[in-house]
Amino acid sequence: MSAPETFAPRRDEPLFGRLAIIGIGLIGSSIAHAAKELNLARHIVLSDADPDVRRRARELDLGHEVAESALEAARDADHIVLCVPVGACGAVAEEIAPVLKAGAILSDVGSVKHAVVEAVSPHLPEGVHFVPAHPVAGTENSGPDAGFPSLFLNRWCILTPPPGTDEAAIARTRQFWEGMAAIVEVMGSQHHDLVLAITSHLPHLIAYNIVGTAEDLAAVTQSEVIKFSAGGFRDFTRIAASDPTMWRDVFLANKEAVLEMLGRFNEDLALLTRAIRYGDGETLHKHFTRTRAIRRGIVALGQEKAETEKLKKR
Amino acid sequence: MSAPETFAPRRDEPLFGRLAIIGIGLIGSSIAHAAKELNLARHIVLSDADPDVRRRARELDLGHEVAESALEAARDADHIVLCVPVGACGAVAEEIAPVLKAGAILSDVGSVKHAVVEAVSPHLPEGVHFVPAHPVAGTENSGPDAGFPSLFLNRWCILTPPPGTDEAAIARTRQFWEGMAAIVEVMGSQHHDLVLAITSHLPHLIAYNIVGTAEDLAAVTQSEVIKFSAGGFRDFTRIAASDPTMWRDVFLANKEAVLEMLGRFNEDLALLTRAIRYGDGETLHKHFTRTRAIRRGIVALGQEKAETEKLKKR
Repeated sequence: MSAPETFAPRRDEPLFGRLAIIGIGLIGSSIAHAAKELNLARHIVLSDADPDVRRRARELDLGHEVAESALEAARDADHIVLCVPVGACGAVAEEIAPVLKAGAILSDVGSVKHAVVEAVSPHLPEGVHFVPAHPVAGTENSGPDAGFPSLFLNRWCILTPPPGTDEAAIARTRQFWEGMAAIVEVMGSQHHDLVLAITSHLPHLIAYNIVGTAEDLAAVTQSEVIKFSAGGFRDFTRIAASDPTMWRDVFLANKEAVLEMLGRFNEDLALLTRAIRYGDGETLHKHFTRTRAIRRGIVALGQEKAETEKLKKR
Repeated sequence: MSAPETFAPRRDEPLFGRLAIIGIGLIGSSIAHAAKELNLARHIVLSDADPDVRRRARELDLGHEVAESALEAARDADHIVLCVPVGACGAVAEEIAPVLKAGAILSDVGSVKHAVVEAVSPHLPEGVHFVPAHPVAGTENSGPDAGFPSLFLNRWCILTPPPGTDEAAIARTRQFWEGMAAIVEVMGSQHHDLVLAITSHLPHLIAYNIVGTAEDLAAVTQSEVIKFSAGGFRDFTRIAASDPTMWRDVFLANKEAVLEMLGRFNEDLALLTRAIRYGDGETLHKHFTRTRAIRRGIVALGQEKAETEKLKKR
């Protein structure tokens, strides 16, 4: 089988023998697609707690095998990736711990890292390396049908190995993500949680909130909100369509950092609100001018094409 | 000159004789491109208060003529479109009123409509029809170089003619926007302002605010914010890169509706904040689930392609 177009080079020799993917949502199924297409593991086994998802994964021919349980999937695996909601990582680690072999690398893909490190570490058997990972990539879709192999292309993947983690295990985990065309960065789990609180968690919370506010309006109908969404609202709805269980767990697991960012956000919003109420155009203009610099940085870094280029191609 | 691909049919006979575009930013220059390419007016004259912008418009060959003043551009025009910030509409209307000919249609493109109706109406000469318009379209770019002809393609344009406005003038204005491939809807100016407060104005304020909050952080560097922006923040920066002067005027001109929406937004955010603080996962999950419905409506209405389709085509 040859892919019509390859987004990353296919390996001649697989990186891992047995790869176990626990949890078959958007991320899990995307890893399955990419790892198979790019020959990152000799044998790819998936599992999910939901029997319907396991059935669907078999229909989709994800990986090489769909096991009936996490335990069965993790047995003798060289690389185990937990792709379950952040709040479930501890329990799954506890469940599979008895079958993890020495030298295996346990990893995850959670959007919060410190809570995962704390939940997983107590269950880690001697000789198993724990290298937490967070691919900063996603779409508004979830479930086993949502995955596609190039999801991680040119996206960052942050590794947050606890101090003292085996360097070779970190290097192999890096190779795994770089093999799927991600760009890897290493940082501490607590710093990760602070960075993501502002770049991802707070934006999601705000988006979920504003879409809820719009839904509750009586004076403006939902069909009007939908019709005229191109004025800015649309982008919020995309973010607010993300998986509810995943995001519930993120906010519960990164509570401190999110509350801190929310506090700052509210203080700043109070200032802008006051400027609107008292007709202080100068304060508004000054604020709206300085926020342009960050945008220029993002476009310059190639994390997004300038919007006009995309629109002109319609 | 033939366009490589036409996004809308070119008229055999122009709709207007003389079209005057006052203000040459993203919207003004896009109208100039579209009206010329699609033969919507026999003679298109532009003007701008800024001499550098006029010079640039001549270099770009926008329309057929760039006049030295709004007065000169508006003289004998059949259709005059004010493409200036909302706060400037009243003053420009007052300036050009003496040269507006009977039967002419005066229009604008402001994102706020009631304040524009109130500012412009007192200056309207007898026999001149005022048909305010708001094309719900834009990009993050501004200025005479930012325009392109298909900006309004499949975007809504809302007309808010005051009660008693000449029906023929409304019909001609509708034809003008439909000629540029926009979808036209008519509603009252106050209702417009309420609808746009939630679908556009509040999202912009929130986006400007969160980008500002991120900029002020000391614990997270700007380069980190930029790097990891794909987790949600990126979409906010795009919105927060819009023209500062235009948006200052929007918030000042639609103060009541924006403050009302802000109040509701804050009440809702307090609820989510509380749920995070006290670990109330059920409230979070319920909220995150119901916001998905609006998103499905937007994708179904064709106002946006599902994101995965775009990503797969990278």
